[in-house]
Amino acid sequence: MSEYVAPIKDMQFALRELAGLDDLAALPGCEDVSPDLVDAILEEAAKFAGGMLSPLNQTGDREGCRLVGNEVTTPSGWKEAYLQFAESGWTAVAAEAEHGGQGLPTVVSTVLNEMWKAANLAFSLCPMLTNGAIEALVLRGSDALKHTFLDRMVSGEWTGTMNLTEPQAGSDLSAVRTRAEPQADDTYRIFGQKIFITYGEHDLTPNIVHLVLARLPDAPEGVKGISLFVVPKFLVNADGSLGLRNDVRCVSLEHKLGIHGSPTCVMAYGDEGGAVGYLVGQANHGLAIMFIMMNAARFAVGLEGVAIAERAWQRALAFAKERVQGYDPADKSGTRVPIIRHPDVQRMLMLMKSQTEAMRALAYVVAAATDRAERHPDELTRTRAQGFVDLMIPVVKGWCTETGIEVASLGVQVHGGMGYIEETGAAQYLRDARITTIYEGTTAIQANDFIGRKIARDKGAAIGLVLAEMRETAATCTVIGGENFGRIGASLNAGANALTSSVVWLLRTFPELPGEAYASSVPLLRLAGIVFGGWQMARAALAAHRRVGAGANDKDFLEAKINTARFYADHVLSQADGIAHCVINGAAVTLASGLADT
Amino acid sequence: MSEYVAPIKDMQFALRELAGLDDLAALPGCEDVSPDLVDAILEEAAKFAGGMLSPLNQTGDREGCRLVGNEVTTPSGWKEAYLQFAESGWTAVAAEAEHGGQGLPTVVSTVLNEMWKAANLAFSLCPMLTNGAIEALVLRGSDALKHTFLDRMVSGEWTGTMNLTEPQAGSDLSAVRTRAEPQADDTYRIFGQKIFITYGEHDLTPNIVHLVLARLPDAPEGVKGISLFVVPKFLVNADGSLGLRNDVRCVSLEHKLGIHGSPTCVMAYGDEGGAVGYLVGQANHGLAIMFIMMNAARFAVGLEGVAIAERAWQRALAFAKERVQGYDPADKSGTRVPIIRHPDVQRMLMLMKSQTEAMRALAYVVAAATDRAERHPDELTRTRAQGFVDLMIPVVKGWCTETGIEVASLGVQVHGGMGYIEETGAAQYLRDARITTIYEGTTAIQANDFIGRKIARDKGAAIGLVLAEMRETAATCTVIGGENFGRIGASLNAGANALTSSVVWLLRTFPELPGEAYASSVPLLRLAGIVFGGWQMARAALAAHRRVGAGANDKDFLEAKINTARFYADHVLSQADGIAHCVINGAAVTLASGLADT
Repeated sequence: MSEYVAPIKDMQFALRELAGLDDLAALPGCEDVSPDLVDAILEEAAKFAGGMLSPLNQTGDREGCRLVGNEVTTPSGWKEAYLQFAESGWTAVAAEAEHGGQGLPTVVSTVLNEMWKAANLAFSLCPMLTNGAIEALVLRGSDALKHTFLDRMVSGEWTGTMNLTEPQAGSDLSAVRTRAEPQADDTYRIFGQKIFITYGEHDLTPNIVHLVLARLPDAPEGVKGISLFVVPKFLVNADGSLGLRNDVRCVSLEHKLGIHGSPTCVMAYGDEGGAVGYLVGQANHGLAIMFIMMNAARFAVGLEGVAIAERAWQRALAFAKERVQGYDPADKSGTRVPIIRHPDVQRMLMLMKSQTEAMRALAYVVAAATDRAERHPDELTRTRAQGFVDLMIPVVKGWCTETGIEVASLGVQVHGGMGYIEETGAAQYLRDARITTIYEGTTAIQANDFIGRKIARDKGAAIGLVLAEMRETAATCTVIGGENFGRIGASLNAGANALTSSVVWLLRTFPELPGEAYASSVPLLRLAGIVFGGWQMARAALAAHRRVGAGANDKDFLEAKINTARFYADHVLSQADGIAHCVINGAAVTLASGLADT
Repeated sequence: MSEYVAPIKDMQFALRELAGLDDLAALPGCEDVSPDLVDAILEEAAKFAGGMLSPLNQTGDREGCRLVGNEVTTPSGWKEAYLQFAESGWTAVAAEAEHGGQGLPTVVSTVLNEMWKAANLAFSLCPMLTNGAIEALVLRGSDALKHTFLDRMVSGEWTGTMNLTEPQAGSDLSAVRTRAEPQADDTYRIFGQKIFITYGEHDLTPNIVHLVLARLPDAPEGVKGISLFVVPKFLVNADGSLGLRNDVRCVSLEHKLGIHGSPTCVMAYGDEGGAVGYLVGQANHGLAIMFIMMNAARFAVGLEGVAIAERAWQRALAFAKERVQGYDPADKSGTRVPIIRHPDVQRMLMLMKSQTEAMRALAYVVAAATDRAERHPDELTRTRAQGFVDLMIPVVKGWCTETGIEVASLGVQVHGGMGYIEETGAAQYLRDARITTIYEGTTAIQANDFIGRKIARDKGAAIGLVLAEMRETAATCTVIGGENFGRIGASLNAGANALTSSVVWLLRTFPELPGEAYASSVPLLRLAGIVFGGWQMARAALAAHRRVGAGANDKDFLEAKINTARFYADHVLSQADGIAHCVINGAAVTLASGLADT
């Protein structure tokens, strides 16, 4: 097992050349975010990720979590790592200074999050969920709730959870049945069962702050009758000390395919008279609050795809260099060679590398747009940036996670028989990755959001802007020409055409035959991901070309970037036409399957 | 957990309409294989698979195998199931009557094997490996070896193993180091370590017959210096009773991603003076014997892809019908619906169903050609059939296993969050499937065989015949016309064109730039699989069309067949052009990656 080494050079390249870090540093509130500071933060984070979190990844997977009574024990070393994570200030990176945070731009915290996720996905889920809970309280929590809970979650002293799912309410949260009964003292008593609660119980911190979706007695049916509550594991006294144990307990842990280090809990609320809860925001507006938080949560899971792909690629590359097997047909000496000399191993590794870099680039560009949408002084720029973010979130979530699984599976394949043995770690990445297309909204949920709210609703305006930009990028490549840029440009142009035809089809189909539109939503999302990824790879190649022209001294890195973009164009982007065919011509036959009637 | 139900109707359809079972029954030696007999055998096998093997699949996965000392205990119920499997005669189906077998045609034993694999892959590996050992002895074993071992392996009284891999010798068997020292009594003493030995040790039978690759002291280096030996766990006395314990032991079990019910053993030979072994065939011809057996072994693993896909599809279909979540946009009543009503769930299920049926059809057609190659009275027919089989084996192995993983992963996705919980079983299919693209030769090994020995060597003659047949099938579809057949025909024709261009490119490239040819071998194999699968789906649709026209009474089944072929054309075959682009234009950039120099 090799440990994770954060790919700082590629991260910096994507930050500077593609996400526009220097421009971001000029935004209000980001004046202190100098390139040197960012570099220093990345270096420190890389040390923590590689030195502390990565070594616990495989041991945590093997050991898993244990439930005794209602108490969960996390794997050995987990608690020490968490305490050091919080002490080092990593939990406080993204929050605003007024809550004890460091207020770093999203694009910077995104890079850090990629590192935690790559080093130890199961561990990283705890701060990720806590961030979600923090955001909900920042957005809609009363001053009292903020006062009691927020600072201690930002500091990492306590963690947070999101309690949404119930056995009958998964993708469909309108089916939530957990009840909240109002009390005379303005608190509520919560009753019900929640499932799939990540870090719902653990031994890392003395308190856990649950955010819980539940229904008030007079609530309307469906999505408009769901409210959000804070339910702490321990009530908090007026002086901030921990008070009574609340009536919420972990009653079971799920036996999962992966992320074994992360406890996935069944939580029982109110078995002994009702769990004390506090309303967050307005009654019956719980799902709306969830929706506000959703962009960040979905983006974070999309980033898991990038992170696991990076980890799997590193592992596979190292193995391919070490493992000696067979001969190079071009070498007549008869010396056995490392398998990286075999053409198909190179093909697999390049598929891993090129897609990982494409995903990372898109994710960072979207993160940067989040910062612009939040902080840019010009309103039109803010609005456009938000439109871009909204369009891209389901793509980052859906495409990066699906591709992350593909890359992790390729990583197993590169290892041959050793990949199937848990010892090497390659199989764990695949097992861990497999949840990412499911939680925080399945790929189909992302795709339906993409075609409905993000394309059809604005009649293709936001995606039209992106398509126009992509054509410009393609034209620039074509002008440079030559074997690499000619091909990158032509392939991006073809991709943009395929995506345009699919969007035109969608805009015509969605209002009239929504079933057909939904039948093609996932292929359309996949097409968009592949083409947007190709766009970023083309931009990366252009930036590399500029820097080589300007005499940059990291020529090997920059030329590899151009070659990787070309590989992506011929091996990944070349699928665009076939997928567009499937989008446009494949829907009717799907609906004609008759499967639902069998 | 639902149990496996053998898809007898689809199996019979593929047997009769595509594989030509009735013609096969006319072959010498198959006179007794009447359609009624085959139906009766399938029904009995289906009962055994669904009633006995399937219920042990998940319990075996959970319990796994245990090693205490050098003894392996298989999961609870495994031994009883094995004894009944052997007693029922299922181990003896394929072997010839002279060895106590039933001599059924390969196409029939293929259907049975699909059932065992689908019901319980880990269990099925034991008879599969035994069949390999049986075949080696039949082909090259001396009369004495046959007398001592063969009948008892055919009856299932003893099992067999294949001992090929060593730590340094995986895909590259020329690196085998296990030694065989000749003794005065014409036996050998075997010394060395073998890894990844499936059922190398177990408690199912009193003896285990290991076939072991090893080197004689004077053997030439490399592939031409490897010999094959029989090394029984217990020596056999002249009267057939078990004698001394031989010096071969299981020293460790691998901790694997899946197939937990199947013990994967590290075997130590000769730690106490040398394991007694008997030479099979000529000295230094061990790999040649392996090569003769390879077609059957690779075909059998390809069939695992079909089998797991079928199992995953059955599980996903059942779940999608049960699980209620969300609304049908077309239904204004506001009633929650089973998820099978959601368009993307239908799309995923149809991807599973259509690819499973395409794989099954191709596998049965190849199995039938094996029977023709062996038994047909006309020599030219035999030769052509053998050419077809040789061409298709790497495709069945490579494409069916890669697709099996894809289908199993879709099965997890259909389940949503429940798919990630081991309880539902969907995750096990993915874990089990993941080995199939690796063992018995990775996909790249298959692909290199495909482009080198199977296409370039005969200058495309064998594949040219297939391409011509495919164009005829496409033309027949086009003549029928209409929305379905028009599209099926056009898409098959486009697929044949894409494959033709790729083969033309290969024939030009292979002699001059073998590295480029190898860089494109896996995409070319995948393209071939997709197109051959589309060919079989088109043939299936044509057969269904004929039978509907003839007034057949299973109209629903037949129309679903046509619809499924159309789905495959629009969703799977439509990828052909993109893959051909990658084959033809993607090789140079792969080799230019510079990864091997980093």
